[in-house]
Amino acid sequence: MSEDSIFSKIIRGEVPAQKLYEDEAVIAILDINPLSEGHTLVIPKEPATTMDELSDDAAAALGRVLPRICRAIMMATGATATNILQNNGKPAGQEVEHVHVHIIPRYPDRASGGGLSKTWTPGKLDPEAGADLGRKIARLL
Amino acid sequence: MSEDSIFSKIIRGEVPAQKLYEDEAVIAILDINPLSEGHTLVIPKEPATTMDELSDDAAAALGRVLPRICRAIMMATGATATNILQNNGKPAGQEVEHVHVHIIPRYPDRASGGGLSKTWTPGKLDPEAGADLGRKIARLL
Repeated sequence: MSEDSIFSKIIRGEVPAQKLYEDEAVIAILDINPLSEGHTLVIPKEPATTMDELSDDAAAALGRVLPRICRAIMMATGATATNILQNNGKPAGQEVEHVHVHIIPRYPDRASGGGLSKTWTPGKLDPEAGADLGRKIARLL
Repeated sequence: MSEDSIFSKIIRGEVPAQKLYEDEAVIAILDINPLSEGHTLVIPKEPATTMDELSDDAAAALGRVLPRICRAIMMATGATATNILQNNGKPAGQEVEHVHVHIIPRYPDRASGGGLSKTWTPGKLDPEAGADLGRKIARLL
């Protein structure tokens, strides 16, 4: 249950955290296991497990605060780039069953700045298969 | 200039794309170089280069559509998990200079389902340094 997650406990003030920001819909805290300096979690208060289960309003409130939190992290740390990552489901690497957005700063001018390590091995969208899939998804929207 | 990016051209209808969704603030298209089936780009029409430059309203509109687009992709493809990733700045792996959110489905039950490949090697937040940094960021918010 998402209501029993560590993040719900932090939202309720039952577990301490280094809080950066809070409004009626969102809190932001420092990740205690950071990939780089200033690694931040932005967490909707609505107790949804994954993005596809979050309400439109909670997702909008979550999106709305990202620019200002990015700016504050970059100003405070000197980071010049960021990766914003949100994992949905165990196969995607989600560890806490409550929606959370990672803001992971990058420090290209620091020898070991850390950050998100990813590899990108894309394919090529087949035009016909893409058109079929595109229509299928669009019909559901 | 973000107005000259491939995504601004797609938004203006000057370059074709497999469009999944469009409203006054956002479009969603299939990525032509997908990491997995259904890899989607959600793009604010506002021509900001990075999330820290995006307006609050454009970021809210971008957030608002993510749950429904995730659901539609998952229903159309059978994906059971997703990674949502947004790269800001070349050192973060950003290739097109116009904010875009990747929704990358995962298929744990397919032998070669593709998806985002990442490694997670976190550190530990030092309580004192964390409190200092946390106060510094919070003051900027």
